[in-house]
Amino acid sequence: MRYPDPSPGDLPQHAAALLESLRARAPRVHCLTNAVAQNFTANVLLAAGCVPSMTISREEIAQFVAGADALLVNLGTFDRERREATEIAVENATRDKVPWVLDPVLIDRTAPRAAFARSLVGRAPKVVRLNHAEFTTLAGCKASRDTVVDFALGHDLVVALSGATDIVSDGKRTATITNGHPLMAKVTAVGCAGSALIAACLAIEIDALRAAAAALLLLDVAGECAAQGAKGPASFAVAIIDALYALDGATVVQRARVS
Amino acid sequence: MRYPDPSPGDLPQHAAALLESLRARAPRVHCLTNAVAQNFTANVLLAAGCVPSMTISREEIAQFVAGADALLVNLGTFDRERREATEIAVENATRDKVPWVLDPVLIDRTAPRAAFARSLVGRAPKVVRLNHAEFTTLAGCKASRDTVVDFALGHDLVVALSGATDIVSDGKRTATITNGHPLMAKVTAVGCAGSALIAACLAIEIDALRAAAAALLLLDVAGECAAQGAKGPASFAVAIIDALYALDGATVVQRARVS
Amino acid sequence: MRYPDPSPGDLPQHAAALLESLRARAPRVHCLTNAVAQNFTANVLLAAGCVPSMTISREEIAQFVAGADALLVNLGTFDRERREATEIAVENATRDKVPWVLDPVLIDRTAPRAAFARSLVGRAPKVVRLNHAEFTTLAGCKASRDTVVDFALGHDLVVALSGATDIVSDGKRTATITNGHPLMAKVTAVGCAGSALIAACLAIEIDALRAAAAALLLLDVAGECAAQGAKGPASFAVAIIDALYALDGATVVQRARVS
Repeated sequence: MRYPDPSPGDLPQHAAALLESLRARAPRVHCLTNAVAQNFTANVLLAAGCVPSMTISREEIAQFVAGADALLVNLGTFDRERREATEIAVENATRDKVPWVLDPVLIDRTAPRAAFARSLVGRAPKVVRLNHAEFTTLAGCKASRDTVVDFALGHDLVVALSGATDIVSDGKRTATITNGHPLMAKVTAVGCAGSALIAACLAIEIDALRAAAAALLLLDVAGECAAQGAKGPASFAVAIIDALYALDGATVVQRARVS
Repeated sequence: MRYPDPSPGDLPQHAAALLESLRARAPRVHCLTNAVAQNFTANVLLAAGCVPSMTISREEIAQFVAGADALLVNLGTFDRERREATEIAVENATRDKVPWVLDPVLIDRTAPRAAFARSLVGRAPKVVRLNHAEFTTLAGCKASRDTVVDFALGHDLVVALSGATDIVSDGKRTATITNGHPLMAKVTAVGCAGSALIAACLAIEIDALRAAAAALLLLDVAGECAAQGAKGPASFAVAIIDALYALDGATVVQRARVS
Repeated sequence: MRYPDPSPGDLPQHAAALLESLRARAPRVHCLTNAVAQNFTANVLLAAGCVPSMTISREEIAQFVAGADALLVNLGTFDRERREATEIAVENATRDKVPWVLDPVLIDRTAPRAAFARSLVGRAPKVVRLNHAEFTTLAGCKASRDTVVDFALGHDLVVALSGATDIVSDGKRTATITNGHPLMAKVTAVGCAGSALIAACLAIEIDALRAAAAALLLLDVAGECAAQGAKGPASFAVAIIDALYALDGATVVQRARVS
């Protein structure tokens, strides 16, 4: 195995270190994401020290991907230009060895979207981040630790399953994270922003399991901090970005519930 | 007449009950809405307990409508793909008996938009929500209680006219609501979100007059609560979502100014 | 020279007066801007008393421009329909004498975007607002007071260069502004909103140098006020809109650092 098996106690320290690296290195993350999530995602990436870009133009996407350190492909609004741009972006990411993350939003709702997601899984994303309903559609079976491990192994990628407990696996190593807050599910695009943060971590961490687990842990801990003063989902949405911006490594390590 | 005439004192109680139903039943609301309003609208729907979706893709829209409990058609950004998706969405909503709301944003500004809105009025939306300038364009006369009643009766739909006083009429029954706050007009997409909330209420309330009046009342009361601590339009925009999320029926009934 | 040379002490007073005029006259500002920036930009314009519109539809753009008092062209998401709408919008703005602002976002990242921006510079925008990297791409040399002056003179327009120090020049007169706050660079679309505010000022002030300097000064001072209570970039983004809404002329004059 290429990477040493992280111990549960190791991942939080690593996430804290990755956060510092994001701030120091300011990776460029190109996001092909849905219109609902674009603004929030850009602000989450900026708060973590990254440089987001968001164009969906066919004519430009190849150059943006070539200049990016990581790519997010999110299927949330599956309009024509985004779909065409996705094809070009993935082709260029593969050629230029830009790591990319797939977020197959709402593939449980329509067949063409699910089919497109399946074809993208075959084109070597480093990480697929999704929720339970999306996993069921993609994998053809209910999500559990075992099915997540199997899917990751079978497709040679990292699965990052979001939920009350996050499960992150590359098929050989598996981490579970029980941080986070219920308000994260009451704000649109929090999951999408989590996928963008995974892309950001992939830009500076070649071990996709560690990158994905770190990104989810950082956002989950920011969510816990944000919930302390929030009066509802909208003040929470503001506070989670502020919290991510202010997050320090000691808080990450102290709050982490990783196994 | 199919539904009993609501007394003014009845509508607030009913709105309070509908709010509880939204939270309990979590209806799916598909929004074909403008790019400016998508994020805010999604967060308003989530705050009210609903499940929003926002795709504008031609290939997917039929399936999303089929899986939705209500549909919003908002003309705020009238680009090609949205227009094509609207045609398909309305056709499917009619066939699948998914109730839908028309929000003819800014039809007073261009002729093609007004023409498109007129054609949509002929395709049986349950509710048309609009402001005074939009009503004038659509109806060919200034908005007043009488012209609103006439338009509703003539087109067999509910008109929900927004303003300092909201007028909601199905042509036979008419309610006026004087709740709300001036800051609601200083935040983009508050009106659009109100239309989305009407769609949400239509998902669980077959009486379109009651659904529309309840939705506007709920948002107006949330606006009043939000204004108490707001320092300006942006903190108000945050607070109105928080207030809607926290709103209880007693507050709705107590604050309601409905006649 | 057509306009008297403003003294440094004159510009803040003028900015304060322009702010009052915006609120009194509520100019219509049409924004062809990127999807990431649309919501924030609309709310900034509303907070300043303006009436924003945002459609990117080819079929409608001519009528929206004809009915607008100023136009913003922002290249942030350079998709097909926006590009086509831009061609039509600029043609109509020129014919109808609607002043327009070019914001050549991220032209340092792709050649087609830079080429498009160059062609637009030749079509008589009143103001080009950009950052250092974008200026370098557009002008073919590093940004400095001298190169900004030369570019403005050579192209008969106002350059508004954003940075820790803003430089605004029409080639004959040059103002520098050192107001603002570092958090303005940690929120997506603040620069884009600044360009929209320049368009708003152009709607009521024929002297483009004064309009551009006033708009940047107003946003910078609002940013300073916002930073006082902000806990991070997201609460800052809320506070800058609230601050602009509440801004009074005395604060502008008192805080201005213009030379």
